[in-house]
Amino acid sequence: MQGLLFSGHDTLELATKYGTPLYVMSEDIILERIRGLKNAFEKTGANYEINFAGKAFTNKAMCKIIKNEGICLDAVSKGELMTALAVGFPPENISFHGNNKKESELRYALEHHIGHIMVDNEDELSLIDKLTKEMNTEIEISFRISPGISAHTHELIQTATEDSKFGLPYALAEDIVVRADQYEKISVVGLHCHIGSQIVDDEPFVLAAKKMMSLYKKIKDRGVALRMLNLGGGFGIPYLTGDEYFDPVTYIPQMVKRIRDLCDDFEMDMPTLIVEPGRYFTAEAGVTLYTIGAVKEIPGIKTYVTVDGGMNDNPRPALYGAEYEAYVCNPKDHEDFKPYAVSGKACETDGLIEKVNLNQPKVGDILMIPNTGAYNYTMASNYNRYPRPAVVLLSGKRDGIIVRRETDEDVLRYDEIPEWL
Amino acid sequence: MQGLLFSGHDTLELATKYGTPLYVMSEDIILERIRGLKNAFEKTGANYEINFAGKAFTNKAMCKIIKNEGICLDAVSKGELMTALAVGFPPENISFHGNNKKESELRYALEHHIGHIMVDNEDELSLIDKLTKEMNTEIEISFRISPGISAHTHELIQTATEDSKFGLPYALAEDIVVRADQYEKISVVGLHCHIGSQIVDDEPFVLAAKKMMSLYKKIKDRGVALRMLNLGGGFGIPYLTGDEYFDPVTYIPQMVKRIRDLCDDFEMDMPTLIVEPGRYFTAEAGVTLYTIGAVKEIPGIKTYVTVDGGMNDNPRPALYGAEYEAYVCNPKDHEDFKPYAVSGKACETDGLIEKVNLNQPKVGDILMIPNTGAYNYTMASNYNRYPRPAVVLLSGKRDGIIVRRETDEDVLRYDEIPEWL
Repeated sequence: MQGLLFSGHDTLELATKYGTPLYVMSEDIILERIRGLKNAFEKTGANYEINFAGKAFTNKAMCKIIKNEGICLDAVSKGELMTALAVGFPPENISFHGNNKKESELRYALEHHIGHIMVDNEDELSLIDKLTKEMNTEIEISFRISPGISAHTHELIQTATEDSKFGLPYALAEDIVVRADQYEKISVVGLHCHIGSQIVDDEPFVLAAKKMMSLYKKIKDRGVALRMLNLGGGFGIPYLTGDEYFDPVTYIPQMVKRIRDLCDDFEMDMPTLIVEPGRYFTAEAGVTLYTIGAVKEIPGIKTYVTVDGGMNDNPRPALYGAEYEAYVCNPKDHEDFKPYAVSGKACETDGLIEKVNLNQPKVGDILMIPNTGAYNYTMASNYNRYPRPAVVLLSGKRDGIIVRRETDEDVLRYDEIPEWL
Repeated sequence: MQGLLFSGHDTLELATKYGTPLYVMSEDIILERIRGLKNAFEKTGANYEINFAGKAFTNKAMCKIIKNEGICLDAVSKGELMTALAVGFPPENISFHGNNKKESELRYALEHHIGHIMVDNEDELSLIDKLTKEMNTEIEISFRISPGISAHTHELIQTATEDSKFGLPYALAEDIVVRADQYEKISVVGLHCHIGSQIVDDEPFVLAAKKMMSLYKKIKDRGVALRMLNLGGGFGIPYLTGDEYFDPVTYIPQMVKRIRDLCDDFEMDMPTLIVEPGRYFTAEAGVTLYTIGAVKEIPGIKTYVTVDGGMNDNPRPALYGAEYEAYVCNPKDHEDFKPYAVSGKACETDGLIEKVNLNQPKVGDILMIPNTGAYNYTMASNYNRYPRPAVVLLSGKRDGIIVRRETDEDVLRYDEIPEWL
């Protein structure tokens, strides 16, 4: 009895072999996305760099995949740095991001010769100045800038408005960057912005580039040897059938051309363009398999299909109102699709999908929710003391664990009882 | 240099001794809440039972505290059951809840003679029937009922509306409960509802009781030996100064009296009343200590204070728009309170507090956020591969770890690399 296929594999077999809930990732799809984006850039002839935004899906196997593809890494914590270094990731290809890096994290990055630090604020700059002198080591940095683009220009530009915890306020940036470059052990090589998520065309990137290039030119004219313009991530993916998404084949050439034109206007050489896709590489490469534990009809209202996971393994619906589709993996002898709500097993109103048409879901069936390859495993919790699911990687005909399933014992591992209790 | 005190302890000393971010829990406050509620019930002369809703704050030490106080436990997973049993919690005082218990979890509960199962739906009932026969063991159960109280009757009644993933639909419940009691190894002893969170008076409980008692009587009249009415949890706590909250001294006697009157109306003996406080026992007993890593002014807009934690250790603002207050723990030679936004360090717009007046926060200062003792540690994640904080328990003058801090190695522990990579 063959079930629904994902990336050429029988989902029922995977569920039986590895148990549920289960994250399944397709290396083939990840590679397709990486190579598609690389090709789109290659054809433009521009200097470019692709940094994978690790926060979307970090673990040793993923670091190895992007290392094998010659992609750089954007890491945001000591834990992410360690993960990459553990698989021999070239430290010079890692950029250390974050709005509040701890001294211990910065020290670790400098000790391990991480190639690049993305500086968020002046407090961090002072700390890096102190540490580089103390450790007698040099570092190349870029600055994250909050370009002050109003969300009104494009509804999806949400993290680069003036009011953001991230980056230097645009109006103050020029002087801070110029001053930073004068620190003994610090070279400023680039500017960075990140304008939002789920962007589906090149327009917002070009708007951001326009504002950033003007700052870039002013700073370069004051003698700072800038060479990189980092436009961050945010390439949109289609969560639901029919959703708009960022198509690199169409948009990368347009984006590069328009930034080239901007450079001509500013009478500047084109900087190395950097983008930081996270979700774009991994979201569609992942599905979650659940076992249906209950099918409950509320007469006259709706029918709930309850699965053996929920907000623990996919907090995005609860956090962002994110929407998903779902499919019953088990074969049925005829089609009879009806609307259902999909809810989780957490002791919380953890709806996963408000309404989806399913073909005769039964207790014990496997339910697949697609597009869970980004911000699912990395945001998972042990709420209700549920162990976190395993992550299985598919590659051609092969399958193997890349993150093992937690046990109940793992969850209890940290508990201690003080002697007075 | 003494800092702000919490439960008689110097927060600066605690931050130095245990590091930040740090959850600090006061056993004294937990005991005060438990004993306050017990006393309020004792004075009414009613038969009652208090079940601690473990999901608010589960770990071995907490189980030991409630065990020492003779409080029962409401557990929702094998992990929570194991935690309680590991400290010798009497299994007969545990009630196993959840809307989608796995067969393996039910089997574990039956093997370990857990006293009571709170059944959510008919699929679960069939499974329990099968397992009790197979294992030749008896079990007392209650049913969770969705009483179909509209949210309009009280804005805080949110989980008991007709459209809920939880419980038997009210209209169908009577027949299902009567039928369940006829299963060979199953005795139905009670009915349960949970009407919502952050309830600040007795009114919603009495409304729910009214509806539940009518069902209870019908079922009893059909020969089922019901003896318990469980009204769930939901006692509200004051997150912000001046917030309304549930005061047991005022509301428990009123609630009991009104339910007694209901019983008189129905010409019934008063059932054993059960309540399931979670947040009420632990939220105010907990604070989180953070170190300030950056203070960033966005000219003309606001100033961000960034701390070394965030949505990882407190997802409630991101999930529910929850509001908190904050205090700078370090002493200052004068007062100069100004408004700040408090944001976290996750690579996400993880604001913890939109606006709070703080006295001269500086980089390196310790910031305390109160009322984080419920749904913080239990909902924490490793997003960005940040290790989860330690939990320290204070008791009188004593302090000790009850959940040890994760290390980076702990976070990387589950990663595996398949042989082809």
